[in-house]
Amino acid sequence: MARKDGRQLDELRDVTIERGWSQQAEGSALISFGATKVLCTASVMPTVPRWMAGKGKGWVTAEYAMLPRSTNERMDRESVRGKVGGRTHEISRLIGRSLRAGVDMRALGELSIAVDCDVLQADGGTRTAAITGAYVALADAIRWAQAEGRVPKSATPLIDSVAAVSVGMIDGEPMLDLAYVEDVRAGTDMNVVATGRGLLIEVQGTAEGAPFDRAELDGMLDLALAGTARLTELQREALGA
Amino acid sequence: MARKDGRQLDELRDVTIERGWSQQAEGSALISFGATKVLCTASVMPTVPRWMAGKGKGWVTAEYAMLPRSTNERMDRESVRGKVGGRTHEISRLIGRSLRAGVDMRALGELSIAVDCDVLQADGGTRTAAITGAYVALADAIRWAQAEGRVPKSATPLIDSVAAVSVGMIDGEPMLDLAYVEDVRAGTDMNVVATGRGLLIEVQGTAEGAPFDRAELDGMLDLALAGTARLTELQREALGA
Amino acid sequence: MARKDGRQLDELRDVTIERGWSQQAEGSALISFGATKVLCTASVMPTVPRWMAGKGKGWVTAEYAMLPRSTNERMDRESVRGKVGGRTHEISRLIGRSLRAGVDMRALGELSIAVDCDVLQADGGTRTAAITGAYVALADAIRWAQAEGRVPKSATPLIDSVAAVSVGMIDGEPMLDLAYVEDVRAGTDMNVVATGRGLLIEVQGTAEGAPFDRAELDGMLDLALAGTARLTELQREALGA
Amino acid sequence: MARKDGRQLDELRDVTIERGWSQQAEGSALISFGATKVLCTASVMPTVPRWMAGKGKGWVTAEYAMLPRSTNERMDRESVRGKVGGRTHEISRLIGRSLRAGVDMRALGELSIAVDCDVLQADGGTRTAAITGAYVALADAIRWAQAEGRVPKSATPLIDSVAAVSVGMIDGEPMLDLAYVEDVRAGTDMNVVATGRGLLIEVQGTAEGAPFDRAELDGMLDLALAGTARLTELQREALGA
Amino acid sequence: MARKDGRQLDELRDVTIERGWSQQAEGSALISFGATKVLCTASVMPTVPRWMAGKGKGWVTAEYAMLPRSTNERMDRESVRGKVGGRTHEISRLIGRSLRAGVDMRALGELSIAVDCDVLQADGGTRTAAITGAYVALADAIRWAQAEGRVPKSATPLIDSVAAVSVGMIDGEPMLDLAYVEDVRAGTDMNVVATGRGLLIEVQGTAEGAPFDRAELDGMLDLALAGTARLTELQREALGA
Amino acid sequence: MARKDGRQLDELRDVTIERGWSQQAEGSALISFGATKVLCTASVMPTVPRWMAGKGKGWVTAEYAMLPRSTNERMDRESVRGKVGGRTHEISRLIGRSLRAGVDMRALGELSIAVDCDVLQADGGTRTAAITGAYVALADAIRWAQAEGRVPKSATPLIDSVAAVSVGMIDGEPMLDLAYVEDVRAGTDMNVVATGRGLLIEVQGTAEGAPFDRAELDGMLDLALAGTARLTELQREALGA
Repeated sequence: MARKDGRQLDELRDVTIERGWSQQAEGSALISFGATKVLCTASVMPTVPRWMAGKGKGWVTAEYAMLPRSTNERMDRESVRGKVGGRTHEISRLIGRSLRAGVDMRALGELSIAVDCDVLQADGGTRTAAITGAYVALADAIRWAQAEGRVPKSATPLIDSVAAVSVGMIDGEPMLDLAYVEDVRAGTDMNVVATGRGLLIEVQGTAEGAPFDRAELDGMLDLALAGTARLTELQREALGA
Repeated sequence: MARKDGRQLDELRDVTIERGWSQQAEGSALISFGATKVLCTASVMPTVPRWMAGKGKGWVTAEYAMLPRSTNERMDRESVRGKVGGRTHEISRLIGRSLRAGVDMRALGELSIAVDCDVLQADGGTRTAAITGAYVALADAIRWAQAEGRVPKSATPLIDSVAAVSVGMIDGEPMLDLAYVEDVRAGTDMNVVATGRGLLIEVQGTAEGAPFDRAELDGMLDLALAGTARLTELQREALGA
Repeated sequence: MARKDGRQLDELRDVTIERGWSQQAEGSALISFGATKVLCTASVMPTVPRWMAGKGKGWVTAEYAMLPRSTNERMDRESVRGKVGGRTHEISRLIGRSLRAGVDMRALGELSIAVDCDVLQADGGTRTAAITGAYVALADAIRWAQAEGRVPKSATPLIDSVAAVSVGMIDGEPMLDLAYVEDVRAGTDMNVVATGRGLLIEVQGTAEGAPFDRAELDGMLDLALAGTARLTELQREALGA
Repeated sequence: MARKDGRQLDELRDVTIERGWSQQAEGSALISFGATKVLCTASVMPTVPRWMAGKGKGWVTAEYAMLPRSTNERMDRESVRGKVGGRTHEISRLIGRSLRAGVDMRALGELSIAVDCDVLQADGGTRTAAITGAYVALADAIRWAQAEGRVPKSATPLIDSVAAVSVGMIDGEPMLDLAYVEDVRAGTDMNVVATGRGLLIEVQGTAEGAPFDRAELDGMLDLALAGTARLTELQREALGA
Repeated sequence: MARKDGRQLDELRDVTIERGWSQQAEGSALISFGATKVLCTASVMPTVPRWMAGKGKGWVTAEYAMLPRSTNERMDRESVRGKVGGRTHEISRLIGRSLRAGVDMRALGELSIAVDCDVLQADGGTRTAAITGAYVALADAIRWAQAEGRVPKSATPLIDSVAAVSVGMIDGEPMLDLAYVEDVRAGTDMNVVATGRGLLIEVQGTAEGAPFDRAELDGMLDLALAGTARLTELQREALGA
Repeated sequence: MARKDGRQLDELRDVTIERGWSQQAEGSALISFGATKVLCTASVMPTVPRWMAGKGKGWVTAEYAMLPRSTNERMDRESVRGKVGGRTHEISRLIGRSLRAGVDMRALGELSIAVDCDVLQADGGTRTAAITGAYVALADAIRWAQAEGRVPKSATPLIDSVAAVSVGMIDGEPMLDLAYVEDVRAGTDMNVVATGRGLLIEVQGTAEGAPFDRAELDGMLDLALAGTARLTELQREALGA
């Protein structure tokens, strides 16, 4: 079965990771999943949130946002509307949770890292591109912190790498890494976040149309784990590891 | 392995559904999962959101909130803080999506139903209790609308029932319907929303501690689907069906 | 003259006080004035507002809110609208002032008690039911604080009990404890807060229709003080005093 | 018993009403109660709130605010804090209700009048000065509307005049029109709004310290009604009636 | 060429400065530029913003606002709309910057002065009237602080006086101090803030219609500096210097 | 006198304009002034603001924002803080006014164009880079609208091009196009917006340190107009005109 852009069912779009895009941030990456482009910057800050202070542990947070004309029709800015929408909140929380699963907070020590993921252009899969790029920015920020002596050079704050990809059921077939035109047609939409070792961090499957059964769920999980394995390789190349 | 409250690993807490609790709402249920108590009210409104108008289809939304002292420590009211938090938004969206999966919007016709889920007392599993109770309130509101002639008596707006339950991995064991003391210890926390026929509407699994593997995911899904099957029976009893 | 629900002009609706409804809060009561139901919870907190710190005195505040479908038509949530409305503010302030009139802040010592009054179902008189139930929750929270040693057992923080009732002029007659259908017909609406000893804490009379004269004011005050005396008895019974 | 500024217990402060202060508004008055100065402007607008449209009736609203340095210590602006405080809301609602009691909405016809009361300098009694001045601005705006043909010249929208004054119990004595230094010492603080014919529109008595008894309430009401009668005369003089 | 109100092209409107209008503020002035009236109050506060603390330097801020009916048509209050508009922010920032240019922050020492400029009536030039009046209020507040010993009597915190005026191009002619009817017709609108010694603090010229050339800019600057020189004299008279 | 980056006093930084960067927007440009990078997108929308409807004229607006880590230290997002800051408002308004000076609204016809300027990396001069890039995006959006028949092909909506540059006084010397390290040292900071024909649209000069005299103002204007002339050439090249 042919996809609109000629890909196989189990094929990722072209993925590029421009590491070190920003000359301001301690870590950064401009990541593309096809036409989807997300600028990820990681900022190292010397303090942790108040409720964590004095425990000798670090913290990692994330914020996701879309530029108003990253999409096909211009959206109002959330700053102008005076509040952050539900979808934005939800994705920011997902990215933060996912990144934290890859970090040993005790090894990081008492500092925090804020990773900003700003979608410059959107064509489906912005949250999974954001997670995958955010990990690269985070890894570089931790290297910076170790080079600067903010984190002991002997510490190993990164336990495992983190990557994410979307899968969906379209016309009864599971497909990997949905572009926007596919996403709107998908009966089920699932995002999977996995570690470099292939363990699961987050599984979020939603029936947008008809509910799905266990067999469909299994098919989608197989595709997704193959996808995150490939993204893990691309992250390693980008980080020169 | 014994649980703190003496339950088996695959055992729900005591679940009670007090249908018709409110004399104001078109449908309502006060649901308890153990000490967790959620008041669900469904309001039938004659209009749909502007972006849906004129399509001859209905709409179902949900809002979730916690009373400030439903929890062990008092939380600030979101109305006083001037904004709805990320977690609240996320759960409201989840409940709405879940309920919509059980409804044929064309059969409902151009009206909307808002289901409010207010947590009066919280002891873990508030979102899954809310979904399970919200379905009962929704079903009654649809009966009311058919009795009143707002929806044709010949129509069948309810495609399938909807119920939800939490599962988690604790000390390497999957457990069903976590109470708060279990929830905070769980390495993985998963919420599963399923239909009365046993199909999946939503699967949300999150590694709070260590990532999980496919086998653990399968174990949790087995427990969850047995739990939602039992909740479906209790919904039927409550609805006198 | 007969009232719609068969009561005498000077008769309260059925009043029930379910003390200790919440297993989370230090004090709580679910109070009903007929179909009006208000859940009152009192939370003891170890600090006072900044402007009071270091004076050796305590503080009592209250917040009032209505569930969106406590009323006959669904109201938007104040959290979703992003601000607390004028009426809500006004009633929260009234409840707080009324409760503070019954408490010796010096005897309480430097801690604060927040009383939340959430209207689960509204049928007129929600603010007066809230004050009457809030006093029971407050009294229990103070007992808890004394039992826990947070307040000296020898102290007497409660000076007097506090109860409230509404009265109104309908068709030239003063009536006690207005239900919603009466409230909307009342030319004058008055709320009276009084102590267990029969002294006045707050008198708020408002001409909704024609202005009222001194004689009418006197007639309403007589009814109200008889009503608060009866509510005081019911509070004592609920508190087992 | 002498008051700090030499007044008798039943004596108002110097009251001046500068009618027509604004050259922009349809009606206006700068009113002083001693050092308390409130600028009241009435704006005639051709529409009514949506919920009133098409009923052939008018509407009157009011907004009260204090300049940040009208008080002895500078307060933050409510616009900068991003929300209107509870006290401000409460007073705005009180002024609006009081003015509406003096107006026949059907005679006014389908237009609305917004009365803004901005406290330029505060020394106690700002809400009562605001109501008393607002009536003068409102009366002039209605004259303007009749002169302009917006309201029929044969109509009589003003039923009665409206004035307000504060009273309080200080050291066991009832006193009229409290200045700020008296207000902070008062055990009970009461605001009374009355019509030119001596009927009551609003009675709001609050025990700030010890609760009060019926005899004290009666003493305060006597003083207040004498005060509003004197303010009614001053309003008539200002309006040249 | 005659102006609508008979003024010469280079003539200011009648300017009056009522120094010490407020009995609450440490410094105040009610300034009129024709029908434009702005109440300026300066509040001395013992602390500086957190980011300035411990540097031994003071700070001066300003806030500008318009009463809702200062204009020909009533505007919504910014407090009610829940946010400060762009124009208000911009003018508040301009006034603050302008005043700070006249103050030696080191000589002031670690305290701050907040100057509030509230427009009671608007007829063009409100921001320039505000700056000119704010300087008088500020100067008086500094005298007060020196008299009270909050600022050493030997210090000289005021380096130079500050005044402002508008100019514009109307029908090809530069005109000084535009009234509202002129302002709306002006092709270019410029505000100039200058010191008593004739140096420039701020030049803001905006083409509302056709862009302007260097010669027109020069003509407007000549008029403006003559205008601020005259305003400087009036400030000196008001301050009795 | 040498500048830190080796430039002459009257020399611009390297300026690049990547036209058509976005595949979503009707017009777009990624502009760099040295390390300052601003993404400008222009969105054509079929309606005008309500207050302009039915006049047969178009409208152009702009919104400016900075990514949280575009700067050397991470800033909080304005969406998260719940409001747009004063500086952001001010610059958005400046960009909008500047662009409108180049457009014949009647020739545009009844549609609006929103230009978003998002600073991806900031090193001084973000508002002037934004205006210069926004013009390119706007010009392309208008070409698109003419190609699509939304604006008549015979119409000439663009009257003149618009470019902007900063100048400042540093150590007594006027300098063109300040980088961030220069900006913080400048005694005076001026932004000049000019047309392709060399006329002035906006002049905003602010004394950050010592006030400036007329001769300094003239020197800065000379530099600025030479700078905008050079930017006009670069815009023409980018637009292939």
